[in-house]
Amino acid sequence: MTLTASAVPTRVATPFYRAVGDEVAVFRAAAGRGLPVLLKGPTGCGKTRFVETMAHELGRELITVAGHEDMTSADLVGRFLLQGGETVWVDGPLTRAVRQGAIFYLDEVVEARQDTTVVIHPLADHRRELPVDRLGTTLSAAPGFQLVISYNPGYQSVLKSLKESTRQRFVAIELGFPPVDIETDVVAHEAGVDPETARALVMLGNAIRHLEGSPLREVASTRLLILAGGLVAEGLGLRTAVQSAVVQALSDDSDVVRALGELVDAVLPRT
Amino acid sequence: MTLTASAVPTRVATPFYRAVGDEVAVFRAAAGRGLPVLLKGPTGCGKTRFVETMAHELGRELITVAGHEDMTSADLVGRFLLQGGETVWVDGPLTRAVRQGAIFYLDEVVEARQDTTVVIHPLADHRRELPVDRLGTTLSAAPGFQLVISYNPGYQSVLKSLKESTRQRFVAIELGFPPVDIETDVVAHEAGVDPETARALVMLGNAIRHLEGSPLREVASTRLLILAGGLVAEGLGLRTAVQSAVVQALSDDSDVVRALGELVDAVLPRT
Amino acid sequence: MTLTASAVPTRVATPFYRAVGDEVAVFRAAAGRGLPVLLKGPTGCGKTRFVETMAHELGRELITVAGHEDMTSADLVGRFLLQGGETVWVDGPLTRAVRQGAIFYLDEVVEARQDTTVVIHPLADHRRELPVDRLGTTLSAAPGFQLVISYNPGYQSVLKSLKESTRQRFVAIELGFPPVDIETDVVAHEAGVDPETARALVMLGNAIRHLEGSPLREVASTRLLILAGGLVAEGLGLRTAVQSAVVQALSDDSDVVRALGELVDAVLPRT
Amino acid sequence: MTLTASAVPTRVATPFYRAVGDEVAVFRAAAGRGLPVLLKGPTGCGKTRFVETMAHELGRELITVAGHEDMTSADLVGRFLLQGGETVWVDGPLTRAVRQGAIFYLDEVVEARQDTTVVIHPLADHRRELPVDRLGTTLSAAPGFQLVISYNPGYQSVLKSLKESTRQRFVAIELGFPPVDIETDVVAHEAGVDPETARALVMLGNAIRHLEGSPLREVASTRLLILAGGLVAEGLGLRTAVQSAVVQALSDDSDVVRALGELVDAVLPRT
Amino acid sequence: MTLTASAVPTRVATPFYRAVGDEVAVFRAAAGRGLPVLLKGPTGCGKTRFVETMAHELGRELITVAGHEDMTSADLVGRFLLQGGETVWVDGPLTRAVRQGAIFYLDEVVEARQDTTVVIHPLADHRRELPVDRLGTTLSAAPGFQLVISYNPGYQSVLKSLKESTRQRFVAIELGFPPVDIETDVVAHEAGVDPETARALVMLGNAIRHLEGSPLREVASTRLLILAGGLVAEGLGLRTAVQSAVVQALSDDSDVVRALGELVDAVLPRT
Amino acid sequence: MTLTASAVPTRVATPFYRAVGDEVAVFRAAAGRGLPVLLKGPTGCGKTRFVETMAHELGRELITVAGHEDMTSADLVGRFLLQGGETVWVDGPLTRAVRQGAIFYLDEVVEARQDTTVVIHPLADHRRELPVDRLGTTLSAAPGFQLVISYNPGYQSVLKSLKESTRQRFVAIELGFPPVDIETDVVAHEAGVDPETARALVMLGNAIRHLEGSPLREVASTRLLILAGGLVAEGLGLRTAVQSAVVQALSDDSDVVRALGELVDAVLPRT
Repeated sequence: MTLTASAVPTRVATPFYRAVGDEVAVFRAAAGRGLPVLLKGPTGCGKTRFVETMAHELGRELITVAGHEDMTSADLVGRFLLQGGETVWVDGPLTRAVRQGAIFYLDEVVEARQDTTVVIHPLADHRRELPVDRLGTTLSAAPGFQLVISYNPGYQSVLKSLKESTRQRFVAIELGFPPVDIETDVVAHEAGVDPETARALVMLGNAIRHLEGSPLREVASTRLLILAGGLVAEGLGLRTAVQSAVVQALSDDSDVVRALGELVDAVLPRT
Repeated sequence: MTLTASAVPTRVATPFYRAVGDEVAVFRAAAGRGLPVLLKGPTGCGKTRFVETMAHELGRELITVAGHEDMTSADLVGRFLLQGGETVWVDGPLTRAVRQGAIFYLDEVVEARQDTTVVIHPLADHRRELPVDRLGTTLSAAPGFQLVISYNPGYQSVLKSLKESTRQRFVAIELGFPPVDIETDVVAHEAGVDPETARALVMLGNAIRHLEGSPLREVASTRLLILAGGLVAEGLGLRTAVQSAVVQALSDDSDVVRALGELVDAVLPRT
Repeated sequence: MTLTASAVPTRVATPFYRAVGDEVAVFRAAAGRGLPVLLKGPTGCGKTRFVETMAHELGRELITVAGHEDMTSADLVGRFLLQGGETVWVDGPLTRAVRQGAIFYLDEVVEARQDTTVVIHPLADHRRELPVDRLGTTLSAAPGFQLVISYNPGYQSVLKSLKESTRQRFVAIELGFPPVDIETDVVAHEAGVDPETARALVMLGNAIRHLEGSPLREVASTRLLILAGGLVAEGLGLRTAVQSAVVQALSDDSDVVRALGELVDAVLPRT
Repeated sequence: MTLTASAVPTRVATPFYRAVGDEVAVFRAAAGRGLPVLLKGPTGCGKTRFVETMAHELGRELITVAGHEDMTSADLVGRFLLQGGETVWVDGPLTRAVRQGAIFYLDEVVEARQDTTVVIHPLADHRRELPVDRLGTTLSAAPGFQLVISYNPGYQSVLKSLKESTRQRFVAIELGFPPVDIETDVVAHEAGVDPETARALVMLGNAIRHLEGSPLREVASTRLLILAGGLVAEGLGLRTAVQSAVVQALSDDSDVVRALGELVDAVLPRT
Repeated sequence: MTLTASAVPTRVATPFYRAVGDEVAVFRAAAGRGLPVLLKGPTGCGKTRFVETMAHELGRELITVAGHEDMTSADLVGRFLLQGGETVWVDGPLTRAVRQGAIFYLDEVVEARQDTTVVIHPLADHRRELPVDRLGTTLSAAPGFQLVISYNPGYQSVLKSLKESTRQRFVAIELGFPPVDIETDVVAHEAGVDPETARALVMLGNAIRHLEGSPLREVASTRLLILAGGLVAEGLGLRTAVQSAVVQALSDDSDVVRALGELVDAVLPRT
Repeated sequence: MTLTASAVPTRVATPFYRAVGDEVAVFRAAAGRGLPVLLKGPTGCGKTRFVETMAHELGRELITVAGHEDMTSADLVGRFLLQGGETVWVDGPLTRAVRQGAIFYLDEVVEARQDTTVVIHPLADHRRELPVDRLGTTLSAAPGFQLVISYNPGYQSVLKSLKESTRQRFVAIELGFPPVDIETDVVAHEAGVDPETARALVMLGNAIRHLEGSPLREVASTRLLILAGGLVAEGLGLRTAVQSAVVQALSDDSDVVRALGELVDAVLPRT
């Protein structure tokens, strides 16, 4: 299934996204009902691109924020700033999305501090409200507002996990790495390399992903393959590009680096 | 026992709630005497709906706040804000409820920081007072004010539990998932699906809840079944809807996801 | 020994308190000499009522604050607030008590942060002074000022305990649950139920308190029995009232709840 | 050796102190050279009284501060406060002592946060300087300024101990409980009881101090004996006074309380 | 491969850098495409010099910041400051680099707090944007802007490591200590000593780097050898210089210091 | 080797320092080249005196700051203060040293928080720059500026140690306790006692330093011996002085105190 750009004017250029499973249909159904969506998947598999694509197709603005461990609800909702002796309220990104009916994408939600819960929960159930305590008011989300959050299940820990009471408010979509043909298309298009180079990189990526007893914390993502392709497009040799963008990016351990080098030698075409 | 809407004008549309046990009678008795109430029960079993229903029936305003681990008493009581060179006091949600005689519902109370104790205790015993230190005053709660807190016993831990000296000030009501017929009614009404689909979802929910040796941290809540129903009402197939709203929402583990998928195949009707 | 209301005008209605041992005599002696008092005892045994009673008898104002783990000395002493471009000093509750010669009751003192020590110590020895660093001054306590603190020995832990250098400044009074006749009087009076119901509740409370190998963290307090009585006074059946106000309040564990239910069946009269 | 009041006018009434060993001579020598002094000893053994006495004898003002775990150098040195739109510098207690040539007594120094080191070190060696960073200046201590700190070795822990680089700047004086005759004098004088009662209390204190295999964290201090005496002076019986001021003050454990009670019965005279 | 200075005017004098492997080609390719670069390597191996060289060759300004564990995104992006009653926005170093199209070098990135992630991520992928929440705006990076971060894999720990979702956005270049001839050139040039002295120092450095079972946390870096050379250039004897700049710098353990001293005796020429 | 005062006018009286090894030559070489210096050595061995001496000899101002665990870079660099409605920048001590070309001595550097790294690093390598982010500027160090830091290797721990990337920027000088004749001179001069008393104290110090299986965390420093000498100069007996200034200063353990007392008896001359 390939996405064709909708006729609705949007603020971003048509993103390049190749769908793999039901993700588009499920997102559309959730959007139709205003249900919040949780995207699950590994680093660099295309979660951000998918949201950009859906925003484009649905004709809605997209506001993206990356969660981090110092992020509090004030970072999302807004705060008073002192300007010229006056205190002026400045909307945070979530408040802007609620007012404009935009899609709000909170990437890596488990990194944020838990007081963000206080603003996520009433927006993620039948209330669709944002309490803005500092203003002493509660905003109803404009039509079109949709909450999307993402996280990487591989990073879950006792300290950083999604609370069940948060998680059970979201329709969950799992994304993974696409099959070879689709990933080859993506790498060729994004990196600006020929299909043969793209396919070689994808074959290498899959070889790394299927390493038995792998010592890697994370496998080679589509993003890494695109980085390597980009260096090739700038004139670097394929092996040098792969060494920097894939091998050195994946590990600091000299034994692992050597083993990955041997895998590269075995998989990449001899030029 | 079914709740019929009272004649008292309220600010919210009549909520849909199907009572299961003594909960309505106990809440009414506590409300009659101004005693605080503690709701216990799993995520998504309908605690919030129950409070909305009781507020509606009693004709009182309801102010809801979700506890979080950065929540302090100032978030509940209020604070001074600088506006145009003047400092202006802004009531917090608890202070508003105390002044207006509203029901104040503090969801997931164990998440809040313990300095909230200082404002909860004198409101939860015979004093019914709110000390507002920053204003140097103490407010007596208006008639009709009632404190309701909730928590999920399954989340209790050494670090996050309700202090006994707090807990023993509250009348406790335990809520669970409703029996099949009532839950089917709720899912059909809330999701806007036909009774057969609702019943199929409820049967699936009960199958998951009764899994022996379940690896799940939390079972499928009524809320999840309503989410799945909502996707069906938007045109998604039942299995696709269940996959996103139930299976992927309950677990990230591929083995568990597969096992749940088999359970879905066994329980859901073949279409 | 029963307290009779003194002739001295006070700000609160005569509290209902039934003395059990030497506590009134010891408190009177300490008050006569201005010595600080430490009340020890379990949750809900009547510590607050005892202090209210003594304040009433001695004709002194009572200022009560509940300790919590974010409480600092500024919460007790006061702080500067910005109002209309001016910073205005606002006395904290302890400073008010020191100026007015009131009884200052700091409930659950071990919960407060240790910088509260710095203001308690010079008030709790021969100096009877309150250093107010922010004002650059030291206040001498007015005659009649008395410091009372309380804690529950059952909650002591390595992290939260009273420092010896604090503890050894106080005259200590231990309070427990009263004998059956006195507790029956208290429950009947406070809940507004007849003596038979009150006695049934007290018998139940004692049965729970004397359970061998009890899995409960805390036993049924007088406070819980009064709560149950209050629900009965509102028209609930005795068993339903006990289920919410005692059984569900004491435990979340379904086995323990069942066992307590059987104890209730055995102890309460069949109606 | 008994201290006689000096002819120098002081701000406090002549304190009552009975010297036990070399402590007065060592303090005088240190004061003569401006060397800082570290007092070591258990809770309630008279450290504060000793410093008050020496300040009185030397004719110097005494400024006392109790260390606590939130105490920072700003609490000692001072800070800017906003008053009427102007920021006004307010000297902290240490700065006042440095300007006036007073004795500065920092009680329980190990409780304070370690940034107090930055102001203690240059005052405690040959420099005798106080850096006041906020004012961009450094004050030379006036003649007569002397730094005195105290701590209780029994409370030392890995987390809270005096850094060697701090400790080795001080002349150390160890104080303990006085011998029977001196302690009897002290208790009789401070509590206002007759010598027989005082001696009975001191005998009890020594019996507790010499308990073999004692389960107590801290023994009965002179301070506790004075408290008990004070209750007797207010008309309480000796046993009741000892129960509240000594036994209940020393332990919350019912077995220990009972054992101490038996010791009291054995030691105190039968009245 | 030796770098020759480009004709483009730069703000720094031509840095002295001797390339070892592909690092210059890879950096050039990344710069050509605006891809962010991650430099990996031990302390003192020349990471900073390499970035200075590349900035010089590419004719771009270089803005360098060292990460530390209190560094937040505001330290990078900027903040409002109060000046003359007005609040004035002051760009942080990252914002300046984004506006000017400079190379921004964040040294020891793993030391910074994780909220820096929020500003690094959108600058490190196809978006090349810097969200400036406090101004309510998002800046597009000027052409020429490039993000470079570095870290030392030997310091990685569970608490301080680069998140995979950050790491996989960067082209990685590993730097090590250069071969003998190149390092001798570097030491001679930087320290201003003759080639023989430089070679002796490099031989010593390599002997230390290849110690079997070395107890050292870190080996002798090129930086240390240059320090030692500098002391020689100031007239110190070679052994004295090595003792201070290498041996004492590497260890505090007297056994290790002695062993290193023997190694020095064996490796350095007898003068 | 004895230091003779230079002709250059300085702000401090000629300090008394007796050199032991190469420390003066190494410091002079480092100063000649502007290289930063790291002083290692135990508490009280004379590190501060050594820096004072070198500053005096080189004719430079000395600015000293003691590191502590709440020290941040702002404490070193400076901050804005609000004065009369205006915010005024106040240079921190490091900024003053950078502007004036003074020696900046950061004592116990490992105690400071790691954001001090951000200001130390660019001052400690070829850049000799101080970034002042709050002013949006970077200061070049004036000629004569030199950074000196110290720490006590015996205090190193996993949590508090010098980062290798910091450490390898410094020329390291190890200081220890001086030999008997030099230390005797120092004690006699500083304490104002006769050579016999000084020698007795030094012999005692060495006896303690060479105790086998010593339970002491730190040995008797030169500083302690000077303190004891000072008490003797004030008229105290030698044994009494040693008891307070050495024995009680070194340990709180009664067994250790007794053992040290026996050592004192054996070593000190019988008077």
